[in-house]
Amino acid sequence: MAEPTDLRARAEQLDRVDPLADLRQRFVLPPGVYLDGNSLGPLPRAVPDRLERVVRHEWGQGLIGSWNSAGWFTLPLRVGDRIARRVGAPPGSVVAGDSTSVQLFNTLVAAARLRPGRRTLVSDVANFPTDGYVAGSVARLLGLDLVLVDPSEPLALARVLDGHLAVLTLSHVDYRTGVLHDMAAVTAAAHAAGGVVVWDLAHSAGALPVDLMGAEADFAVGCTYKYLDGGPGSPAFGFVHPRWHDVAEPPLTGWLGHATPFALEPEYRPAEGAARLRVGTPPVLSMAALDAALDVWDEVDIADVRAKSLALTDLFVEACQGLLEPFGVQVVVPREHARRGSQVCLRHPDAYPVVQALVERGVVGDFREPDLMRFGFTPLTLRHADVLDAVDVLADVLASQAWREPRFARRAAVT
Amino acid sequence: MAEPTDLRARAEQLDRVDPLADLRQRFVLPPGVYLDGNSLGPLPRAVPDRLERVVRHEWGQGLIGSWNSAGWFTLPLRVGDRIARRVGAPPGSVVAGDSTSVQLFNTLVAAARLRPGRRTLVSDVANFPTDGYVAGSVARLLGLDLVLVDPSEPLALARVLDGHLAVLTLSHVDYRTGVLHDMAAVTAAAHAAGGVVVWDLAHSAGALPVDLMGAEADFAVGCTYKYLDGGPGSPAFGFVHPRWHDVAEPPLTGWLGHATPFALEPEYRPAEGAARLRVGTPPVLSMAALDAALDVWDEVDIADVRAKSLALTDLFVEACQGLLEPFGVQVVVPREHARRGSQVCLRHPDAYPVVQALVERGVVGDFREPDLMRFGFTPLTLRHADVLDAVDVLADVLASQAWREPRFARRAAVT
Repeated sequence: MAEPTDLRARAEQLDRVDPLADLRQRFVLPPGVYLDGNSLGPLPRAVPDRLERVVRHEWGQGLIGSWNSAGWFTLPLRVGDRIARRVGAPPGSVVAGDSTSVQLFNTLVAAARLRPGRRTLVSDVANFPTDGYVAGSVARLLGLDLVLVDPSEPLALARVLDGHLAVLTLSHVDYRTGVLHDMAAVTAAAHAAGGVVVWDLAHSAGALPVDLMGAEADFAVGCTYKYLDGGPGSPAFGFVHPRWHDVAEPPLTGWLGHATPFALEPEYRPAEGAARLRVGTPPVLSMAALDAALDVWDEVDIADVRAKSLALTDLFVEACQGLLEPFGVQVVVPREHARRGSQVCLRHPDAYPVVQALVERGVVGDFREPDLMRFGFTPLTLRHADVLDAVDVLADVLASQAWREPRFARRAAVT
Repeated sequence: MAEPTDLRARAEQLDRVDPLADLRQRFVLPPGVYLDGNSLGPLPRAVPDRLERVVRHEWGQGLIGSWNSAGWFTLPLRVGDRIARRVGAPPGSVVAGDSTSVQLFNTLVAAARLRPGRRTLVSDVANFPTDGYVAGSVARLLGLDLVLVDPSEPLALARVLDGHLAVLTLSHVDYRTGVLHDMAAVTAAAHAAGGVVVWDLAHSAGALPVDLMGAEADFAVGCTYKYLDGGPGSPAFGFVHPRWHDVAEPPLTGWLGHATPFALEPEYRPAEGAARLRVGTPPVLSMAALDAALDVWDEVDIADVRAKSLALTDLFVEACQGLLEPFGVQVVVPREHARRGSQVCLRHPDAYPVVQALVERGVVGDFREPDLMRFGFTPLTLRHADVLDAVDVLADVLASQAWREPRFARRAAVT
């Protein structure tokens, strides 16, 4: 069983003219087809040497002096500026550090403080759980009402964006369905209601063009270990729109967010701009790996990334529709490009063991409760032909019922 | 100019019988005398190889599968258990992750929630600033009164530990003066007033015996890049006493603190025990370096560390008193061993340029506003003779007035 010849010919033609084709060599790629770069991006070849230098030279020889001489101290802002270029934010408006959960907590409280007297914090029911958990905690701390909304229902958002709105927080791309929300339109609607917006860019930064300034977004947070390839648990980032630079009051008032950290003043005075999103001493090793990972991105035009991402998901969707629907597989992806992130899900009642059987054959995707196989498409490292190879393996696993072997049903801690 | 011969003879004798002497070989030590291990510990030789393996093999080859197969997912708890052994805490009560500032915020809010209706949050004026900044932010969020107290004044603490006390937070060792507080007595006094206590172990974990359970401490946070040698910005840790395991409600409700993170449930249910102090995805590279750094500690008896620390500071104090007081240097350290951490400060009106001149000659300490030279003593890597060598260099810098060269007066970003 194989996909129609015209799809294969199209994939090969797309690979021949792919402007990003050479970037693949800048990464370490194990055999098989890795479609989980939306969970953990592959290793950029620049990272091991950089880490070796940071550890043996900067830490081992430079010791405490490296906070100045190796620029450790300025890493959160320098790396933040590099991320800023990927998300349509100006220099000085993005800080790298902490986890996405911590960045979200910090920006949500800061956002709510800009709207005293208003009483709702609106969050996406389809958000990654941490977003809902953190929104719930912030609502409790500030005495706000948490309102959950399903933004895929056309009128749901409109109903809750009213005069009570303090803060709306949404994922730019839904982590399960891959739906891409219209950042500018949603932000405008929240602003019209008098609220402020905090966007979660976990599944869009590095995957597609993001224009925080163009959309007038107030705050944003995001993840760097997915499409930005920063490594396992690499630092997250936070964005504050320049209009809020001097008034935002994040609650995580660690010493590095102070205007003059080394004066060790007894009173907290926040640093200017987004620098106030710095909290404690940054994890230099993880931050340096991220910094090295971003080198590749300096050579990338995000429009090329987006075009390739859509070509990859189109190919995948068409091949799946042709080959997999007979096995009861349902393709879950927005048909319109304007509403599509860089992932495709397949729904199947036995999604869990099917994913495990696939992984064993070198096609790595992940499982999301209750019945989704999720596949991410990373344009810097994938070839169009890889996508069709993956669908062929998937068709074979389903046709042969190889996934029914009992070992594939065992749940691991992380799925 | 040199210290009296009897001090040198004593140092040499102590080095000959030092049970920790061999551990020095387990670290990379640049030339000179490094007395800043209380800011950033030196590089353990086990770290570079471990990081290389994590990066090239676990990330590069294992990719997303390494969350299970390489145990990334359990690192915060496994590393937490290793730290627990250093601070008198039982397995399952310590979690590694985030920065000290974030851990402090999380535990302070959790602590205050155990005492609803009470209205004061008492913090140490001499605390490292981040502690005061974070305490101020928590007081604001929860509507508590922040009360600052100087615990070195004998009656000051007693005055504020009253029926209004919700939470007391103190540094176990003062980051400037090196004063070690009596954890058990202070905790008992706070408990007698009906409050709970959050200890900051930044300058005691790995420096001296800490007995959180013996002292009945409620919560604690600490730093691993100082005496525990975890590397620049290595993850901090948080401790929750087992009596609070099932009731503590930390506000940073990230997905990894959930009882079943991978079920991706919409409602937050905290994990059992200290595992609820996990927040977001941990920075694996920094966490793995810390894990490797802790290997050395498995072989160390903390009683030996304490005995050597006191011998080192005694030697330093005696040598300074003999050689440096003629230059207007005042030794700032508690005379009593029971009240002394593992550091000594020297007060001098030109402390800043003197420290810079010392650094240039290979004797590395640091400067703390307004007039303190601070020297940390790390028993795993220092020899007793090193301490006297350092004092000799210091005496020479002062006698020759070498520190008056204008370049030593220029302030760097991090001092």
